[in-house]
Amino acid sequence: MSGRLQFFFEFASTYSYPAAMRIADIAQAAGVRVQWRPFLLGPIFKSQGFDTSPFNIYPAKGRYMWRDLERICEDLGLPLRRPDPFPQNGLLAARVAYVGLERDFGEAFCRSVYRAEFGQGRQIADTAVIRDLLVELGQAPDQILTRAHSEDIKGRLRAATHEAERLGIFGAPNFVVGDELFWGNDRLEQAISYARARSGINQQ
Amino acid sequence: MSGRLQFFFEFASTYSYPAAMRIADIAQAAGVRVQWRPFLLGPIFKSQGFDTSPFNIYPAKGRYMWRDLERICEDLGLPLRRPDPFPQNGLLAARVAYVGLERDFGEAFCRSVYRAEFGQGRQIADTAVIRDLLVELGQAPDQILTRAHSEDIKGRLRAATHEAERLGIFGAPNFVVGDELFWGNDRLEQAISYARARSGINQQ
Repeated sequence: MSGRLQFFFEFASTYSYPAAMRIADIAQAAGVRVQWRPFLLGPIFKSQGFDTSPFNIYPAKGRYMWRDLERICEDLGLPLRRPDPFPQNGLLAARVAYVGLERDFGEAFCRSVYRAEFGQGRQIADTAVIRDLLVELGQAPDQILTRAHSEDIKGRLRAATHEAERLGIFGAPNFVVGDELFWGNDRLEQAISYARARSGINQQ
Repeated sequence: MSGRLQFFFEFASTYSYPAAMRIADIAQAAGVRVQWRPFLLGPIFKSQGFDTSPFNIYPAKGRYMWRDLERICEDLGLPLRRPDPFPQNGLLAARVAYVGLERDFGEAFCRSVYRAEFGQGRQIADTAVIRDLLVELGQAPDQILTRAHSEDIKGRLRAATHEAERLGIFGAPNFVVGDELFWGNDRLEQAISYARARSGINQQ
């Protein structure tokens, strides 16, 4: 029996970038199965009275976050280029991600989006950028974009966002094991250990 | 030559509790000298428009923090009892801490305050509680409390709070090496490594 973990992330979220780049390898090494669940932070922030990222609303917090992310990316050997505007709108990317996740290119697409957005500063709300990323992955953009705008896919994204709210999620990334939340890229290892322990796999 | 680090903390701050209990041993093992600088978050929160802890203002964030702190304390074998009201007013404790820090019982006093507040749920704004803690440390409370209310000591606390603002500190605990901030109990090890590397001590 393997451990299970839900990975709630938002494409606009800076700390979701290193988490998304790291999680597959770490989870695989630990024998933990990960369900990728892109969701939207916008509605959750709105219900807290924020109309943009708290990193924009509180400049000192924003300055710290960019410096901290710089250190994290440097340690991981990940490129970092701050997208303008920040935050980017992650709606289109999230819908396309759900198409990828029902097929076989979902996780690779999510990593591509983050690499484009935070590694190269590209505009992920731009359909042309998303098309490029799909082509690079050997996928046919037209058919995927049509599916991405279907009620079925829109519904999956809405369901993930509602589930995030129900779980008490207020930021991203969040690693969820049962109803237990682990918030932030720096909680990934702890969440993986928890998922393993819960599934009865012995710690090595 | 040893590394140096400034430890900015606030007695009301939950995550400052595990940080304060851990820092001395970790820093000593790494050969890093720590300057303890209690400060007040209240004026900083006020300038961001908060009239209480963000953990009270945003209930989902607050629920997560208490659960996260519970897990952290369990891992460290630290008792946890939520003080009521939260946050406690840390002004008196911070002033007394500056008296201790100019003598030889400052760090021990800080740990005593955290143990009383978050380990036992005691009222740290209550002078009787602070007197008890001083007596337990073998100190004479009257003389120390008189010194704690002197303009000199009040000025030290104000200076630390101003310095925190100048550095861009917006939460606690913060570990500061030069002008580099490391925010949060979970950044302690990273800050210590940074302080060591900066001082030219080879990593082991």
